[in-house]
Amino acid sequence: MLTYTLSPDDPRPLYEQLVSCLRNDILSGRLAPGSRLPSKRSFAENLGVSSITVESAYGRLMDEGFVLSEPKRGYFVTQLVPMTRTCAPAPEAEILFPPEQERFSLDLSGNQTPAERFPFSVWTHLLRETVSDKGPELLVPSPCGGVPELRKAIAWHLSSFRGMQVDPKQIIVGAGTEYLYGLLIQLLGRERVFGLEDPGYRKISQIYASNGVACRWVSMDESGLTVSGLQEVGADIAHISPTHHFPTGITMPISRRYELLSWADEIPGRFIIEDDYDSEFRLTGRPIPSLQSIDERGRVIYINTFSKSLASTIRISYMVLPPDLANDYYRNMSFYSCTVSTFDQYTLARFISDGYFEKHVNRMRLFYARLRRQLLRVIALSPVAGQVEVLERDSGLHFLLQIRTQRSDPELRSLMAEQGINLLPLAVYYQHPENAPEHTFILNYSSLEPSGLEQALQILATLI
Amino acid sequence: MLTYTLSPDDPRPLYEQLVSCLRNDILSGRLAPGSRLPSKRSFAENLGVSSITVESAYGRLMDEGFVLSEPKRGYFVTQLVPMTRTCAPAPEAEILFPPEQERFSLDLSGNQTPAERFPFSVWTHLLRETVSDKGPELLVPSPCGGVPELRKAIAWHLSSFRGMQVDPKQIIVGAGTEYLYGLLIQLLGRERVFGLEDPGYRKISQIYASNGVACRWVSMDESGLTVSGLQEVGADIAHISPTHHFPTGITMPISRRYELLSWADEIPGRFIIEDDYDSEFRLTGRPIPSLQSIDERGRVIYINTFSKSLASTIRISYMVLPPDLANDYYRNMSFYSCTVSTFDQYTLARFISDGYFEKHVNRMRLFYARLRRQLLRVIALSPVAGQVEVLERDSGLHFLLQIRTQRSDPELRSLMAEQGINLLPLAVYYQHPENAPEHTFILNYSSLEPSGLEQALQILATLI
Repeated sequence: MLTYTLSPDDPRPLYEQLVSCLRNDILSGRLAPGSRLPSKRSFAENLGVSSITVESAYGRLMDEGFVLSEPKRGYFVTQLVPMTRTCAPAPEAEILFPPEQERFSLDLSGNQTPAERFPFSVWTHLLRETVSDKGPELLVPSPCGGVPELRKAIAWHLSSFRGMQVDPKQIIVGAGTEYLYGLLIQLLGRERVFGLEDPGYRKISQIYASNGVACRWVSMDESGLTVSGLQEVGADIAHISPTHHFPTGITMPISRRYELLSWADEIPGRFIIEDDYDSEFRLTGRPIPSLQSIDERGRVIYINTFSKSLASTIRISYMVLPPDLANDYYRNMSFYSCTVSTFDQYTLARFISDGYFEKHVNRMRLFYARLRRQLLRVIALSPVAGQVEVLERDSGLHFLLQIRTQRSDPELRSLMAEQGINLLPLAVYYQHPENAPEHTFILNYSSLEPSGLEQALQILATLI
Repeated sequence: MLTYTLSPDDPRPLYEQLVSCLRNDILSGRLAPGSRLPSKRSFAENLGVSSITVESAYGRLMDEGFVLSEPKRGYFVTQLVPMTRTCAPAPEAEILFPPEQERFSLDLSGNQTPAERFPFSVWTHLLRETVSDKGPELLVPSPCGGVPELRKAIAWHLSSFRGMQVDPKQIIVGAGTEYLYGLLIQLLGRERVFGLEDPGYRKISQIYASNGVACRWVSMDESGLTVSGLQEVGADIAHISPTHHFPTGITMPISRRYELLSWADEIPGRFIIEDDYDSEFRLTGRPIPSLQSIDERGRVIYINTFSKSLASTIRISYMVLPPDLANDYYRNMSFYSCTVSTFDQYTLARFISDGYFEKHVNRMRLFYARLRRQLLRVIALSPVAGQVEVLERDSGLHFLLQIRTQRSDPELRSLMAEQGINLLPLAVYYQHPENAPEHTFILNYSSLEPSGLEQALQILATLI
């Protein structure tokens, strides 16, 4: 007769203890498939428990499929698939955490926003207000494109800040531009060929590749991506950042913009994805009109994010679809839930409508303009002043540093790295590094301290 | 000579007014490509402004690519691509909003969580605490799988609540299960064939289809998805909800679970996606062990969400990858940013670690158990008591109602709809509706009021 020790000190009820003993023995093979279990009464006597306890345990094991009851014959262990016993347990695979990024004491290529500048108190205040005003409404699923309040606020912002006339229904809100790219691939079709700027952010190409769509590198000239380049690679979609290209800093002139729009209009199914990621930080003058705002033929998909202008960790981005694509989206993809929490959507809507966003952007723009001036002065007064040239086009949150040196770019990079400083040559953003201008390095300054740059340049002086 | 009226009352500086006049005339064609612009001095005199104003305006227009300066010759309108003038503007396409869902006064198929049950005050309190304790740390991008605090909290919850032993590094946090399915397609490869339960949620198949991967419907028997069904359609991946299948309510017995694990282990590259979406709401007894917890061979991907257990609008879900897949993820997909706001991640981590989540789930379980009993009593006392049978398996947030009626299911559905009541037959969840049991209707009760059900049944009584 089977015997188990059930303990009244165990917090689990007796029947559950019995279930787990029996289950273990069935799984381990000690109780063979097909073997008969003791009758309820005799088992209960043997264990010193009531027969209701045994009955409950058998009932549970029947529910779980471990035990069968055959009328008039009794209880039997089911014919479990023998896998558990014949298969050796898989060796415990070790999980390699994502390869640690090298840690630098100073990162001249980092693009974080300075944390202490986030309007924490306003944000939490508005969030609290949102919770108390909206209450249960926050639990109502948002429409697939985002809550109307937020999309109206974004449309208003685009109109006042960027001169864009947009129907809030054209706006689709999502948790980051990376997520929106994924939606666009589904919307545009994965048989399309996507043309990307070379040089450019590597991540965009990784997303396309990970989604199994063809993406090709398209050459640029001093006005940005070229139409001939698009034609050469047979692109259907041009994915560009005309306001401020990273890393070259190029702002695409209006003539090239019209050329691209003409290219897109030549053949149905061609589109331009305009990534306007840091247009808020053009530091002088008004920005050039967005491609979207001069597009009369519904060929431009405008994408922007609050990552740069508010915080990258809040994860809110949006795209503006031309009307036909918006209809396609609603027809084919409205089953997707919006990926941004309603709490955050309503809070951001208030943040924009109540004027906080504009104030915040203005404050940040002043902050960055001052920082930029300080940094340029640091460079001018540094020991390398005579050996570097700053290439900048008055826009965005980075500029380029051309260094006169006999050392090769990889050499200088690794010498700086040995000193704990991350300084990246432009070549790392090129698909064909041999096309990159030599001795040109990126300076992302959004979270750079003047004193840090001063030290870095002193070290640089000893190395070049 | 060109003449414009510039106004000192316009809030824009004079040079910007001039830029916009000239730009408009260039775009409209009034100033032809190639035509010469007035010299700075004479233009300034004519307009009654300083020549610095004209110079600034020309400079801007050159930046924008509208104007060229030729040394010693003067300023000229560039040869813009003629598109703007030759193309008629596209007819304004109308945006059809996503087809309005029919509005019902009572939805017996809705699956919202009852809004008034959300722990608003605890949540906002923890959020405030998070902001004041973490501060700038909230602006540091989260690792691709989510912040460590949250993943540890989830691992702890899975261990104490579900008996699952999971390394936090196996956990990937994302903005909703729909988003995670998209990641899984990229991780597993889009050449795989995905097998889905028939009947089942239509949305899962829509996501696979939208991502262009093959998905096939797999037949079920009374134990759930069948291995023979998987083999028939040649599936590589089985996507199932064994704890509580929607809409049938089937809980997969342990024997079928082992059969499926054996199937998955037969050929490398086979996996099971276990969607455990409402396991927290098994109302009696302890849940059957998850497939993940009896999987010794690394074949099961476990997915769960806080949509049911907390709120669907906060958009936090997670998956537990087997170690090998976790390594693949880190190797190939760690460029993706986590899609959930760090603010929400840290707040949820506290909510779990401080015991609020467990309390909330327990409270909700009691609430649902009471509601369920009330609703069953309403049915038993209703005029249709003799003509309906409740099919339920003590788990999850819905049960089935079998109605004895001469009317066809679509007929009854539309008669109820005319009365403002949404009552869906099981057949709507079947890929092959002819396989659905007749006269069987879904009752999702999570946000159903007993009085509402009472009214609905009185109406039903007049119709059957």
